[in-house]
Amino acid sequence: MDNVKQQVLKMIENSKNEIITRVQEIVRYPSVTGEEKDAQAYVSRMLKELSFYVDIWEPTMDEMEINPDFLAARDHFDGSPNVVGVLKGKGGGKSILLNGHVDVVPEGDNDWDDSPWSGKLEDGKIYGRGASDMKGGIIANIMAVKAIIASGIKLKGDVIIESVIGEETGGGGTLSAISRGYKANGAIVSEPTDLQVCPVSMGAMWFRITVKGLAAHAGTSYLGINAISKASKIIQKLDEFEARRVKLKKHELYQHMAVPFAVNIGTIKGGVFPTSVPDEVIIEGRMGVSPDEEIREARKDLEDAVYEVSEKDNWLKEHMPKIEWYGFCISSGGVDRDHAIVKAINDNYKYVKGSEPVVVGTPWGTDAGALNRYGNTPTVIFGPGPGETAHKANEYVEVEKLMEATKVIACTILDWCGYEQ
Amino acid sequence: MDNVKQQVLKMIENSKNEIITRVQEIVRYPSVTGEEKDAQAYVSRMLKELSFYVDIWEPTMDEMEINPDFLAARDHFDGSPNVVGVLKGKGGGKSILLNGHVDVVPEGDNDWDDSPWSGKLEDGKIYGRGASDMKGGIIANIMAVKAIIASGIKLKGDVIIESVIGEETGGGGTLSAISRGYKANGAIVSEPTDLQVCPVSMGAMWFRITVKGLAAHAGTSYLGINAISKASKIIQKLDEFEARRVKLKKHELYQHMAVPFAVNIGTIKGGVFPTSVPDEVIIEGRMGVSPDEEIREARKDLEDAVYEVSEKDNWLKEHMPKIEWYGFCISSGGVDRDHAIVKAINDNYKYVKGSEPVVVGTPWGTDAGALNRYGNTPTVIFGPGPGETAHKANEYVEVEKLMEATKVIACTILDWCGYEQ
Repeated sequence: MDNVKQQVLKMIENSKNEIITRVQEIVRYPSVTGEEKDAQAYVSRMLKELSFYVDIWEPTMDEMEINPDFLAARDHFDGSPNVVGVLKGKGGGKSILLNGHVDVVPEGDNDWDDSPWSGKLEDGKIYGRGASDMKGGIIANIMAVKAIIASGIKLKGDVIIESVIGEETGGGGTLSAISRGYKANGAIVSEPTDLQVCPVSMGAMWFRITVKGLAAHAGTSYLGINAISKASKIIQKLDEFEARRVKLKKHELYQHMAVPFAVNIGTIKGGVFPTSVPDEVIIEGRMGVSPDEEIREARKDLEDAVYEVSEKDNWLKEHMPKIEWYGFCISSGGVDRDHAIVKAINDNYKYVKGSEPVVVGTPWGTDAGALNRYGNTPTVIFGPGPGETAHKANEYVEVEKLMEATKVIACTILDWCGYEQ
Repeated sequence: MDNVKQQVLKMIENSKNEIITRVQEIVRYPSVTGEEKDAQAYVSRMLKELSFYVDIWEPTMDEMEINPDFLAARDHFDGSPNVVGVLKGKGGGKSILLNGHVDVVPEGDNDWDDSPWSGKLEDGKIYGRGASDMKGGIIANIMAVKAIIASGIKLKGDVIIESVIGEETGGGGTLSAISRGYKANGAIVSEPTDLQVCPVSMGAMWFRITVKGLAAHAGTSYLGINAISKASKIIQKLDEFEARRVKLKKHELYQHMAVPFAVNIGTIKGGVFPTSVPDEVIIEGRMGVSPDEEIREARKDLEDAVYEVSEKDNWLKEHMPKIEWYGFCISSGGVDRDHAIVKAINDNYKYVKGSEPVVVGTPWGTDAGALNRYGNTPTVIFGPGPGETAHKANEYVEVEKLMEATKVIACTILDWCGYEQ
């Protein structure tokens, strides 16, 4: 076994230039929501060159029904194809699914030192929107399999490589792939965990709270009800609610985070003029969900907190704030930290790196939630990118970690699927 | 005397059609800020027909310096002329100044039943933007003098009729007229008091508070500082501050108002995305100022309240909210309720209406503040329009009250200026 792994690791080492080039090339496709097509064609070509059976299709909304809490920040997937490649094994081994999303968040208003789509290599880092989150991970997945194939090794179990769309807008691509039947005995989602091994990912969902007041001229403000003052009570209650969650929702894989499942109020907007009493405030935010928590249960807890403070206010109790769950809802979920797929990654991390991996939960939602909950596929999250650069200017992935992730994933595939030489 | 007054009242009664027509005509000029010129030409023609000496000029910013706290929601007055007419008396009487503003607030998004500039007469009401606030008042001022002239009465004191611009944006027109030397022994501002006699008007000014936070991804929100949460502390403090002002700033002419000098938070805006910790919130509002209170003193009180709550917060004390006074600041001010000009109006209200007037302070700022403070002109506020319809859709003035205001103002002029027949 060691001999085979060493051969594959050497093959990956020899592919370093190709790995770098592949990441640079795929980063140059600006695959923001709705514009994933060209990047997907690129992935599809890579998979076909490796003799994968390649399935390309546009997801449909009815495929989302397997997740009863599904919400997306898009209402269709036209022009946004999923790409899944299947490499059949010889039989007698366990199947593995390697999942990555090709869609990226917009480049943003922030100051990039270079074009967000440059793919520039500098000081051992490849820059660009998606380099870390998570085109680096997609290339690691594919290049791990390529090294195995190039080493003349025949895997016993099937390998499924997924390049999905729609993760940044709610996880529609992976749900569609599950609905289409793509499941496996184990899976790796190579999101930017910075080589930490993550058996679980938190859920995340968006909320909108509308607080009503009563308009009046500011000179006779006592004839109105100030919606901004009322909203401030809701805000302070949500802060208390978050503090209570820190105590109630402890999780062994989130002990490193001061507030693991945050209730973040992200935006507020209300009123039209300094001299009018504002009659409406809209608050939007994001709630993190524990891997042990159901979406509905988490929603109800937040709603109860808002209703509780509103009941104590003479106006609000008659004009209850409206709470909507909109735009984005990605399921939490995971496997036990002693699960075989976690052990396989851990062992090979040690084999490649010579040290113990850090094992924690992810600070954001990933498609692992859906794979675990709705795909019946035990899934771990492990990838090369640094999470801190994701969604920001000057996003990058380090070449060294890209190489290490590719190696760990390749060795994990060998152990998991079994092989013949 | 009664004989003379009866003659003038009869003349006004006979002018009812003209009064209605004049209000309709002047309402049809959409004299929003920057577009006052045509309405002013109309006023100017009326004054010239009555043989007034007419002064027309565009105010300049240096004329505002008489009010050290001046702030305006406009940075020049080009194309926005003031019109002042002077009718010299025979001598030996007191002078009177009749002030009105020709600028109106925008028609707004609200649903008008008819065009905002229709001047429609229906069920004894004349409709249109400015009908109440305060073109009805301007016509009452002019028609009161016209009735006196038409009755063949020679006044002893001078009459100054001002049709100013810029009241709705901070009072620049009246300040300019004061700087130009227009002062008198007494004045009436015919703002829409609904025939209440107002010896004082409150001040009003706008503030903007910027609260800073620290951006972070919502998943690791504890690495950031939520500006919306911090802003909620400021909002609650301002609510407490307002409640304290209700106790501290009592005024005999504002006992009818539950919160006379309100601290109204009118708008709030902060954050960019549900999944980001917001790093800035901007709050804008309007603070009412007691007639007994100095602008600077009121500003400092609000600033102290914000600083006080900020000092108790570890983040805010190092990142103090920025407080700006911007856009609009109109001075409070007034005369004693026993002042001769108030008595003159009160007596003639009783003479015309047969009942005691209601004597209170205005719920908004008026140009009376500047006339009293910077113009050394004892000024009372009294006019026909209903304040509730001002700045709203379907603004109107009642013909009956228009007639009564004209009569009360005419009789007051007779008493104040003295006359020869």
